[in-house]
Amino acid sequence: MSALIERLRAICGPAHVLTHDDPATDLSAWEQDWRKRSRGRALAVVRPGSTAKVADVVKSCAAHGTSIVPQGGNTGLVVGSVPDDSGTQVVLSLARMNAVRAIDPDNLTMTVEAGCILQNLQETVEKAGFLFPLSLAAEGSCTIGGNLGTNAGGTQVLRYGNARDLCLGLEVVTAQGEVWHGLTGLRKDNTGYDLRHLMIGSEGTLGIITAATMKLYPLPAATLTAWAAVPSMQAAVQLLGLAHTRLGPGLTGFEVMGQFALSLADKHYPQLRVPLFKETPWCVLLENSDSENEAHARQQFEALLEAAMEAGCVTDAVVAENIAQARGLWHIRESIPLAQAEEGLNIKHDISIPVSRIPAFVAETDALLQREIPGVRLVDFGHLGDGNLHYNVQAPEGADGPAFLREWEARVNTLVFDQVARFDGSISAEHGVGELKAHKLPRYKDATALAMMRAIKQALDPHNLLNPGKVLAASAPS
Amino acid sequence: MSALIERLRAICGPAHVLTHDDPATDLSAWEQDWRKRSRGRALAVVRPGSTAKVADVVKSCAAHGTSIVPQGGNTGLVVGSVPDDSGTQVVLSLARMNAVRAIDPDNLTMTVEAGCILQNLQETVEKAGFLFPLSLAAEGSCTIGGNLGTNAGGTQVLRYGNARDLCLGLEVVTAQGEVWHGLTGLRKDNTGYDLRHLMIGSEGTLGIITAATMKLYPLPAATLTAWAAVPSMQAAVQLLGLAHTRLGPGLTGFEVMGQFALSLADKHYPQLRVPLFKETPWCVLLENSDSENEAHARQQFEALLEAAMEAGCVTDAVVAENIAQARGLWHIRESIPLAQAEEGLNIKHDISIPVSRIPAFVAETDALLQREIPGVRLVDFGHLGDGNLHYNVQAPEGADGPAFLREWEARVNTLVFDQVARFDGSISAEHGVGELKAHKLPRYKDATALAMMRAIKQALDPHNLLNPGKVLAASAPS
Repeated sequence: MSALIERLRAICGPAHVLTHDDPATDLSAWEQDWRKRSRGRALAVVRPGSTAKVADVVKSCAAHGTSIVPQGGNTGLVVGSVPDDSGTQVVLSLARMNAVRAIDPDNLTMTVEAGCILQNLQETVEKAGFLFPLSLAAEGSCTIGGNLGTNAGGTQVLRYGNARDLCLGLEVVTAQGEVWHGLTGLRKDNTGYDLRHLMIGSEGTLGIITAATMKLYPLPAATLTAWAAVPSMQAAVQLLGLAHTRLGPGLTGFEVMGQFALSLADKHYPQLRVPLFKETPWCVLLENSDSENEAHARQQFEALLEAAMEAGCVTDAVVAENIAQARGLWHIRESIPLAQAEEGLNIKHDISIPVSRIPAFVAETDALLQREIPGVRLVDFGHLGDGNLHYNVQAPEGADGPAFLREWEARVNTLVFDQVARFDGSISAEHGVGELKAHKLPRYKDATALAMMRAIKQALDPHNLLNPGKVLAASAPS
Repeated sequence: MSALIERLRAICGPAHVLTHDDPATDLSAWEQDWRKRSRGRALAVVRPGSTAKVADVVKSCAAHGTSIVPQGGNTGLVVGSVPDDSGTQVVLSLARMNAVRAIDPDNLTMTVEAGCILQNLQETVEKAGFLFPLSLAAEGSCTIGGNLGTNAGGTQVLRYGNARDLCLGLEVVTAQGEVWHGLTGLRKDNTGYDLRHLMIGSEGTLGIITAATMKLYPLPAATLTAWAAVPSMQAAVQLLGLAHTRLGPGLTGFEVMGQFALSLADKHYPQLRVPLFKETPWCVLLENSDSENEAHARQQFEALLEAAMEAGCVTDAVVAENIAQARGLWHIRESIPLAQAEEGLNIKHDISIPVSRIPAFVAETDALLQREIPGVRLVDFGHLGDGNLHYNVQAPEGADGPAFLREWEARVNTLVFDQVARFDGSISAEHGVGELKAHKLPRYKDATALAMMRAIKQALDPHNLLNPGKVLAASAPS
């Protein structure tokens, strides 16, 4: 293997090829996944600084039959960007490719390298007067290449779509080490199969994204946030419909939170002062982005909430008076997973269901779990506007967390995912498949679709060199 | 071959398998393309009435090694949906599969079969209080299956995207006659490769779309149209930026029209009363869709136009006073291709360029053509908001049209497409590839992308049974 390492050092420079040969080198940042569920062992971590060098690295690895794990910020939640424990895989970090190649104000696009940190991009374009609307919890560390590789979601999907919907063009290094120069800034291009969307969300198993051309938007003139108490999940769905009609595309956020989820936030972070949750089973956080001004946004919001109260789908509501209050409301929403962790171990699900079926799904699945596990506590919250729930299962009060997980995790997953399938939903709304859920696809994915996925993987990466075992489990029948 | 015909009759019923055996049967509606550029000869036209029957037809054809040409409304512009002249291909018409399977108001989706006529869908959901925003000239005849197969564009792309952006899920029959049940109504689903986007725009060469789940939107409360004179293409681009900022997502249309294009409309249809074009090189048609009311939309529009006049990018403008006036303005825009036809033969291009580069592209390419062809007349118009120009070349005044085409068509195409390539554009923005442009891809498409397309085609349709010769030319090297 040292011939390959030597070659990689010649390509990238010795400083950018890290191995375990030097015992002082700590590779855990690249070998350990974000949620600390899996620790692999890499043959080497290579950090090429250009697309041409990425292509050379791939060609060299291919010549040695060595597989490659592409990696951005390594913040994924499904064990998609770390090597296995064989010590034979090369981690290819895109972190050094972090140039903003171009911003085109008239075309409302930017062309950026895969290793750009999401938050840096948001800030760079905001200074130029534009909005890059992709936004998610890991934005301080995750990279745009990883966002595209996993088709990241986040809090602005309702209006702006997932990462794929923001991408116009890609530059990709194939499994053969060829470069596809597809950095188009075009909103219409019907010259053949859409390879862009095939690469996006393929989690580095079909090609390595080295750069992308992304859409920009004008900065909204004002953004307001409201918090509403709703008497039922069905009422939340009704409020969503009203908000769509009255705010149109101004509706940029619609998050639902169950009473127990909010009570955990209130219990562990009393300083957050969670509003309105004590007398209502559900609260909704709404965001309205306005291209005119704050007065107009406020008037729109107030008219919506009045209409919703008249219709009976809102019982009480507040509109944030200023940016600090708005941030405070979002902060409550974002603190729920942290409050859950404070409360103890729990089983998380990132699922989606057609919006219209969410009330029945939640009622049925809550009841099913409560029958199965006496005292179980359900932390339901999520991006209702996208049909995306973080449907989390908390151990009964005072239970031994690790014992609860050992006894229940696999069974609860099956139970919840089977329910998701019954309601025509998805077992991974925004987090992807990675290694964590690869073995679940044969049960939950349409068999014909899975066969097509395997055929495409075989066609584009016949020697299974790119991120093997991710998305498509190695052991599944062909 | 009669064994196959017999089998197809057993599957679909004798009335739904048409052949040339009966000399009274006229198959020209299925064999002749919309622009009458190509007339093929089919072995048979089959019209299955269900997904299961489509799958059976495909399996039977595959067993006989007979290739299949899927067909919707047969309104495509690039010879993508008619058979070749061999008399050996089966045309599979989806026209009988025209059920609206479901409308889900809370999920803002509808699930419809491939053969539904676009305009019928628009009208059906409008009655239910929703907008289905896909809109194009052929909407009275084209089908949603064809719209997806070709990733249709049209007049609302600026706000709502192309056909692919409106689709959440698909049902597809593969080249093996298997059914992929992918009719999800989910806005987030990260469980593997995006086969939906791969099928959309593949022009029936990778699978046969039998049904789709499509997004709906609330009906806007008011839609207003304005017409502005702008002093240059650069000013039109500047106006577009202002409109994006001030109207936000309310901006649903932005069409540019050159003076000569408008003079043709004025000459051949004087009753249209084209406004403002005589003293300005370009006019722009803008559309503003508002979720509040007409007064608000008008106030927004007037503020925008005032700001644009102050900035010098608009010299004069009118806002339509009522729906009839608005329709009249759109009618002028839509009459340009007809006025061109009245004027004589011409060479059409459906191209896209990054918006920021359109002024330079038009100036350079106009000059280049005028140098090459003395007296040539350029009919420039299109969806500037999408960077999509219909860049058409009209014979010199009084020229012999057919002679002009014979002498110049191939050369003009190469000249224009080479310019498009220089400006990082696309030689087919919204019409697709079909047979007409398949042989042009090797020159204008990235070689690595083309190789991936061939690998995918080979993987999903190894015997080249689905629409052979479309998108990927048969004769090109592998």
